[in-house]
Amino acid sequence: MKGWIAGVLGVVGVMVAGMAEAQDLIVEKKVFELPSYTTQGGRTLKNVKVGWESYGTLNADKSNAILICHFFSANSHAAGKYAVADAAPGYWDAIIGPGKAIDTNKYFVLSSDTLVNLNTGDPKVTTTGPASIDPDTNKPYALDFPVVTIGDFVNVQKALVESLGIKKLVMVAGPSMGALQTYEWAASYPDMVGKAMAVIGAAEADAQLIAWLDVWAAPILVDPNWNKGDYYGKTPPNAGLAKALTVVTLQANHGDWTNGTFGRRPAKEGENPGKALGNKFQVQSILDNAGEARAKVSDANHFLYLVKANQLYAAGGKSLADAMSRIKAPLLIVNQPKDLVFPDEMIQRTVAEAKKAGRDVTHVTIQGTRGHLDGVISMKQAEGAVKAFLEK
Amino acid sequence: MKGWIAGVLGVVGVMVAGMAEAQDLIVEKKVFELPSYTTQGGRTLKNVKVGWESYGTLNADKSNAILICHFFSANSHAAGKYAVADAAPGYWDAIIGPGKAIDTNKYFVLSSDTLVNLNTGDPKVTTTGPASIDPDTNKPYALDFPVVTIGDFVNVQKALVESLGIKKLVMVAGPSMGALQTYEWAASYPDMVGKAMAVIGAAEADAQLIAWLDVWAAPILVDPNWNKGDYYGKTPPNAGLAKALTVVTLQANHGDWTNGTFGRRPAKEGENPGKALGNKFQVQSILDNAGEARAKVSDANHFLYLVKANQLYAAGGKSLADAMSRIKAPLLIVNQPKDLVFPDEMIQRTVAEAKKAGRDVTHVTIQGTRGHLDGVISMKQAEGAVKAFLEK
Repeated sequence: MKGWIAGVLGVVGVMVAGMAEAQDLIVEKKVFELPSYTTQGGRTLKNVKVGWESYGTLNADKSNAILICHFFSANSHAAGKYAVADAAPGYWDAIIGPGKAIDTNKYFVLSSDTLVNLNTGDPKVTTTGPASIDPDTNKPYALDFPVVTIGDFVNVQKALVESLGIKKLVMVAGPSMGALQTYEWAASYPDMVGKAMAVIGAAEADAQLIAWLDVWAAPILVDPNWNKGDYYGKTPPNAGLAKALTVVTLQANHGDWTNGTFGRRPAKEGENPGKALGNKFQVQSILDNAGEARAKVSDANHFLYLVKANQLYAAGGKSLADAMSRIKAPLLIVNQPKDLVFPDEMIQRTVAEAKKAGRDVTHVTIQGTRGHLDGVISMKQAEGAVKAFLEK
Repeated sequence: MKGWIAGVLGVVGVMVAGMAEAQDLIVEKKVFELPSYTTQGGRTLKNVKVGWESYGTLNADKSNAILICHFFSANSHAAGKYAVADAAPGYWDAIIGPGKAIDTNKYFVLSSDTLVNLNTGDPKVTTTGPASIDPDTNKPYALDFPVVTIGDFVNVQKALVESLGIKKLVMVAGPSMGALQTYEWAASYPDMVGKAMAVIGAAEADAQLIAWLDVWAAPILVDPNWNKGDYYGKTPPNAGLAKALTVVTLQANHGDWTNGTFGRRPAKEGENPGKALGNKFQVQSILDNAGEARAKVSDANHFLYLVKANQLYAAGGKSLADAMSRIKAPLLIVNQPKDLVFPDEMIQRTVAEAKKAGRDVTHVTIQGTRGHLDGVISMKQAEGAVKAFLEK
């Protein structure tokens, strides 16, 4: 409820200030709860909760909703701010808001935290995963939590959407793991998805992505504090998790950024990296520090379950060809050719398979120094394409 | 001595059999010892030993020598076999041998194990590094071993070359870390290097490579058995080392290979990867098994010292521009545009800087599904270019 009010207030603010782009959209995180949810693997979980937020107002016939799905390390904060003083708005604020490409004066935009969301230490995030208390034991599930899939993420979102009385979404969209959820929605619930915008993500995890996701997970599995997932109430495996998050950050960027930003500068003046094994270059210390900071608000088991969900992913549960034969929605596919997580050839395979299946495909590319991350932080480049896609 | 004899026998064998390409070159590993070596960092090490081998015969005026430098996880076994029954010859056997592009009927080809060579458990490898016994303490150096550089690798090779009475090399060549050593040779000892062939490697480590090398090292640093390098006589950090080697293998290949070879097949029929967190896809189990097998004959500290040497690398010790201003040798630069370790743009920067400095540069590319590794296993594609470069 408050989210809707926030959306309305945003609109009012715009009208008063007369400058839609500069006006902050003030949003609020809410919680959606399912008394019971049965995973695709067949395990029934009680009291499944996820956080969610929304921007704009749901119209009377509930026909103006757009769902945004978040990426691996993100949460449902896709746009707006919780308070004017917030340092930064949600990750896709450049294209979501009053008068923006996804115009919250026109659309009701919502987004939810996924199951096994990484950011368990973020007070704004609500999720259900290995770190959650199992109501049957009153202890954290740890590795007793079942394997969940991108399909499970989508099924929980579907329950949220249906709880609001929404029968069909104008569009489902998201970057990276958000694109995976988008294709999953379009393939599994083709009659509920009007349009689908998949940004920096493919419709199936290939062997290369499966193997790289293992590289992300590796430092956690080696950390003795991981203790086969049993670390709640003890010292968590933050050394391994920090290294894992460092890998994610590095692969989500491109050499144009690391080289242009850091060069071969030492981390500290006067501490020549050649003088001691532990002396670092700046690029090493910045990435390590970022990983360590992120680890403090993240959960290592959730990281591993996210890795697994991404590895298992094939939209609709079968194959790329099957997914494309089931999708009805027109597709807007956006990628960055220098992406190191979802390389261009992987996106091209999805585009080719979609066209082969007769789908209505618009494919646009964005540029930048960040590679994969440009799909998050440089999305303003695609605003014209997004607007045109929504209007067509 | 025996190496030379082996070289001669190889030639004789060729003459008898009359089919140069099919004839195995039988080689022997030898050991070169320096009573004392002072690192670029200023630390003096006693009894520095490295293994080496050679193919062909050094001529009377010692003017027909070619030095091959090895890659990160390799050793001096560049060509030939130790015994006819060996499963495979040295890594560049396709271009080194009687009648081949680097013709051992004409050239005396030699190669040495680097300092801190990874393969301490390989009985054919001799190296000096953290796993070696410090003559002053009679205990392994562990992390008391000084940081060494690609320049140190080259300086030890120079001592070997000079011990044979060789004043100038016809060519220095190598793939990957071997290319780094090649540029180092050409920049630091321009009058000793007639020609330089740098394959799948650049003349300076950039921020992106420095950061990726940290990803390689990360699982070792988290493994409790690493114990800050103090594990000799105890359980070695093979879990971390295995994961580290898995990362190297993955990045040294390309998605064309992983996807084409493994697809989304499960590791074991009937063990659906979706059914349990530990159930794997084939690509995961094959890479993990390869990493575990390699870990058993490798040393984790040596891995970390190799990472450091590569991170510190700038040919000649200063910068790419400085290196290119000092090099005199014509350059044959070979790369694979799909290389994920030394991406095409990194090689292009080296090529551009070499041309800007007025160097004589020939740049050729090779193709394949392996990416970086094509510079090792697909080098036959470049044999025409190598032959022409040597003859010009």
